[in-house]
Amino acid sequence: MQFLSDNAASVHPAVWEAMRAADNPDAPYDGDAISASLDEKMSTLFGRECAVLWVATGTAANCLALATMVQPHGGVVCHEEAHIEVDEGGAPGFYLHGAKLLLAQGEGAKLTPEGIRAVIDPIRDDVHQVQPHAISITQASEYGRSYRPAEVQAIAALAKERGLGFHMDGARFGNAVAFLDCSAGEAAGPVDALSFGFVKNGGMTAEAIVFFDDEAADIARYRRKRAGHLQSKGRYLAAQIHAMLDGDVWLANARHANAAAAEIAGACGERLMHPVEANELFVRCTEAEREALRGQGFGFYDWGADAARFVTAWNTREEDARALAGAIASL
Amino acid sequence: MQFLSDNAASVHPAVWEAMRAADNPDAPYDGDAISASLDEKMSTLFGRECAVLWVATGTAANCLALATMVQPHGGVVCHEEAHIEVDEGGAPGFYLHGAKLLLAQGEGAKLTPEGIRAVIDPIRDDVHQVQPHAISITQASEYGRSYRPAEVQAIAALAKERGLGFHMDGARFGNAVAFLDCSAGEAAGPVDALSFGFVKNGGMTAEAIVFFDDEAADIARYRRKRAGHLQSKGRYLAAQIHAMLDGDVWLANARHANAAAAEIAGACGERLMHPVEANELFVRCTEAEREALRGQGFGFYDWGADAARFVTAWNTREEDARALAGAIASL
Amino acid sequence: MQFLSDNAASVHPAVWEAMRAADNPDAPYDGDAISASLDEKMSTLFGRECAVLWVATGTAANCLALATMVQPHGGVVCHEEAHIEVDEGGAPGFYLHGAKLLLAQGEGAKLTPEGIRAVIDPIRDDVHQVQPHAISITQASEYGRSYRPAEVQAIAALAKERGLGFHMDGARFGNAVAFLDCSAGEAAGPVDALSFGFVKNGGMTAEAIVFFDDEAADIARYRRKRAGHLQSKGRYLAAQIHAMLDGDVWLANARHANAAAAEIAGACGERLMHPVEANELFVRCTEAEREALRGQGFGFYDWGADAARFVTAWNTREEDARALAGAIASL
Amino acid sequence: MQFLSDNAASVHPAVWEAMRAADNPDAPYDGDAISASLDEKMSTLFGRECAVLWVATGTAANCLALATMVQPHGGVVCHEEAHIEVDEGGAPGFYLHGAKLLLAQGEGAKLTPEGIRAVIDPIRDDVHQVQPHAISITQASEYGRSYRPAEVQAIAALAKERGLGFHMDGARFGNAVAFLDCSAGEAAGPVDALSFGFVKNGGMTAEAIVFFDDEAADIARYRRKRAGHLQSKGRYLAAQIHAMLDGDVWLANARHANAAAAEIAGACGERLMHPVEANELFVRCTEAEREALRGQGFGFYDWGADAARFVTAWNTREEDARALAGAIASL
Repeated sequence: MQFLSDNAASVHPAVWEAMRAADNPDAPYDGDAISASLDEKMSTLFGRECAVLWVATGTAANCLALATMVQPHGGVVCHEEAHIEVDEGGAPGFYLHGAKLLLAQGEGAKLTPEGIRAVIDPIRDDVHQVQPHAISITQASEYGRSYRPAEVQAIAALAKERGLGFHMDGARFGNAVAFLDCSAGEAAGPVDALSFGFVKNGGMTAEAIVFFDDEAADIARYRRKRAGHLQSKGRYLAAQIHAMLDGDVWLANARHANAAAAEIAGACGERLMHPVEANELFVRCTEAEREALRGQGFGFYDWGADAARFVTAWNTREEDARALAGAIASL
Repeated sequence: MQFLSDNAASVHPAVWEAMRAADNPDAPYDGDAISASLDEKMSTLFGRECAVLWVATGTAANCLALATMVQPHGGVVCHEEAHIEVDEGGAPGFYLHGAKLLLAQGEGAKLTPEGIRAVIDPIRDDVHQVQPHAISITQASEYGRSYRPAEVQAIAALAKERGLGFHMDGARFGNAVAFLDCSAGEAAGPVDALSFGFVKNGGMTAEAIVFFDDEAADIARYRRKRAGHLQSKGRYLAAQIHAMLDGDVWLANARHANAAAAEIAGACGERLMHPVEANELFVRCTEAEREALRGQGFGFYDWGADAARFVTAWNTREEDARALAGAIASL
Repeated sequence: MQFLSDNAASVHPAVWEAMRAADNPDAPYDGDAISASLDEKMSTLFGRECAVLWVATGTAANCLALATMVQPHGGVVCHEEAHIEVDEGGAPGFYLHGAKLLLAQGEGAKLTPEGIRAVIDPIRDDVHQVQPHAISITQASEYGRSYRPAEVQAIAALAKERGLGFHMDGARFGNAVAFLDCSAGEAAGPVDALSFGFVKNGGMTAEAIVFFDDEAADIARYRRKRAGHLQSKGRYLAAQIHAMLDGDVWLANARHANAAAAEIAGACGERLMHPVEANELFVRCTEAEREALRGQGFGFYDWGADAARFVTAWNTREEDARALAGAIASL
Repeated sequence: MQFLSDNAASVHPAVWEAMRAADNPDAPYDGDAISASLDEKMSTLFGRECAVLWVATGTAANCLALATMVQPHGGVVCHEEAHIEVDEGGAPGFYLHGAKLLLAQGEGAKLTPEGIRAVIDPIRDDVHQVQPHAISITQASEYGRSYRPAEVQAIAALAKERGLGFHMDGARFGNAVAFLDCSAGEAAGPVDALSFGFVKNGGMTAEAIVFFDDEAADIARYRRKRAGHLQSKGRYLAAQIHAMLDGDVWLANARHANAAAAEIAGACGERLMHPVEANELFVRCTEAEREALRGQGFGFYDWGADAARFVTAWNTREEDARALAGAIASL
């Protein structure tokens, strides 16, 4: 009964099937027909023209997207607990050639226009200080909070006002859309680029960078190759993304994971550190309580000394979720 | 009847099978049991201790390996037609933070101690010129030539004498071993790191960097994450490499491809620009001749104005190879 | 009556004289006799062997020093208000190829072992988080506080225990030594490299990087050239440093500036935000009070909304310091 | 009787005088009045609007200029013997974040449209190969050859046609203008940025980057600070440039050096490897002949095994030039 993470779950049958169907030779890299048809499908999903690049990881997706918005002498405003700041091994420093992350605060690892302004307004407009070039937010956030469409719009307005690029890390974008019960386009708002995650949601090795700006996509194609992320058998990655988009598997998977999380959340009451708006739960519990849960066969990570993190996945069994809910309720 | 490249061929059944078998959840990244057991298997193959890191592409493998040997202010001696120089979109400049490729000459895209010395001896030992930090060779070379073990040893001796790192790009390492009819260890010689290619040889999305130096492997692990190449479901990559190593599938596949190339080479006579020592053929033929071949259903790339390149693969059908041989003989 | 900064003051007569004396042609770059004799003089001053590289700015000095200690995938622990973090335009990101500054807290912009541990202890020893490679402190600190020799030793012990490089930004090192009334060697402690500032202390265009590690100095010489900081007429820079060292001009100048600061400090009482341990004063005063002071001819920077910063220099006139002291006392 | 290089010569009296006159405190960095008035003076000289940034070295000037034209994934077309390729310790790799130098050939270290096209035309327009972003030429070239205005225009036309930036390394720009007997504007043609060298021509520590594009200058100001090249007492650098421009000292100095070179050239006859179009001479002579010259007190560098390089300077004495001419004639 694993609730450690969604990032190592099994691969969805539809993904396997699509990969097998891609086994006929085709042009290498992204010259194959499967890769070529991604743009149209994604444009339909988002309701506006976009260009799709597949890559192997969310880290690569985030950094390649940001590299189209940020010059090496600039900075990216992000939350102080953003994945790009705390969990990517310095990848933004590498991909952005030394550009700086400018850390903002905000509840639930979410940025707000106020929080962003608190970081960028004090920056003197002179060469001694690193100037912001872009804003990056995570949808759903690192604490499983989802930005409402109006919240995304407000940040986008600020970005536009200040001439900043706007990136969304959507490692769990599907979970946010499922929670918000809106369209993909509404959940993404007017971002310039979205890292649309599939690996945590039933995929195997393919994430999508969705560029709503052709020029940025062109730059990113060079940068992807230069980063060693242009795989020669790219059709197997493209096939994964198609499989997730076809019949909205991505959304069904996310809804499933969210439902499991909601089930558990219902048993947590005051223990919840953050409202559950995706598929992650941060639950206050003592070391003894965590031991008790582990003793009953539940796997999860400690979250500091006084809490635990539970993550549900596309394939979390309902009975496991119910069991965990029951166990927490009985603590 | 495709002879365009081996880099987009289908995936070997054993690889598919191993990937399916890896579908049970395990620890993320490279913490799973499948990844963990690569070192031992590879050490056995090479007859000396090594540490294995999987990555998605040969470009990433080459650059991460070199990043452990070359400081940003240094240089890498490589052939002027080396893949890292002409076909990786500037990835070495990115991964090595601006270090320089120092271009040497040599027949068949192979380096020799003399060719290397011709590049490094004139470099003044002062800060105005970029100093060499490493040597990189390609086994088999970009023209399908294989370094004899003694040739590798001679370059290794020079590297040691000058205090340089020694890297081998083995995108088609299997084909070289198959041609040389020696052990993997003999074909690699005392290199510090080997990019051991599997994708061109029946794999899907996994290449191995084989480090014969623990400290270098430790650095590379940080650099891999930083480059966005640490995939969360790494077990699917590790499984591919295991499938290739188990029962020496890699060698059988390479032998098959080489045999097909040899079959075709037998019909080429004076047309051959380079001896065929792996699975690539560079064949002199006029535009009219190339048209004639294409008219018969053969796919391949032009190689300049007066030649064609044919590449065989692990799954090239014998009848196709024979047909191509016959067609060339009849030109 | 300027107290804006010491960084734009006039050049000391001894420096002018030494520069004029260097006007005879000599070998270019750092091959001249004047540059060559810096090591010995500086080794005598510090009481241990060192190698000296001149550069044009403190930013270059800091970054070149750190580049010898920090790999691109690593980090530097520094104070959150350190000059390298807030005032160098992202130069550490550039020179360290994307390495990260790991921000610690501490009173008066000074680090302590506790503050450093609070930053580095929570860093998981895995590839997802940037690992510390070095510590950098500023002597005197950005708030004009000087590390006591025992404090430097304590940080050095921690650096050694954790295998970290140890760098000191000594933009106002002379002022610290003057305040501490100890030797240069005691004020620097066992750092691996010191940015020894002269420009703020009567020099024109020359700062010294003092390496107490030959191998690091060798690397830095390549990096200096690569950064465009190896000036062809380097003898004019070396001459400036000699002029400052000969007869301890650096110390006399710093003492003069400190005395002026002390004079002013004596009039500030409760207004002082930080004890004055060098040549900078941070003084609480209202906007009206600042206007009053400016009306009397004093130049200085606002420090936020409720304070002012005054900096004395090697050539601050005693009567100006007395006048400012009187004016502040009369507020 | 030194003809080693112009890069370590004494400083011109007018430069000393201007530096002394700058000794009064003013705003730090480039906020002083002396720095501020450079743009206008230089715009007058070139006959079109430009923005001037001072830096300490030609290497920094070249690299900061190119950094405004070249993305990290792009390349710079330059001559294979260009200073940026062979003598800057890899600085372009550092400043351009791994961008590549694309090496062209051409007589006398001069590029031609044909030579440039021979490099860029074969580059496939795909992500596997580094695409050109800029062209850089050296005026006068590394072999002391000067581009005629029509030659510069022809390269500029090609740059424009291909959408490439156009940079001129003018380490010895003055010598080229003096030889060409044209205006500075004609010698620079429509380049986007010029590294205007003064140090080799009587200056001390100041070179100018002249940007004919405001946006590029704005970027370069950030990059200059980030590279540690924004000196706090910048007025002493600005003063040097003013001194060289006032009364056309730069041109008089260059004419003097050129005249000395011409005097010597007149005695060289068939020995000259390159026409003398600036202040450098490359002269065929045996080792015995070089020894003989050195025996007579002449200082110079060997140029390979069979030649010598002589460089005249702004302060080469006429009698020394005559003496060298006589000595060469008598060999």
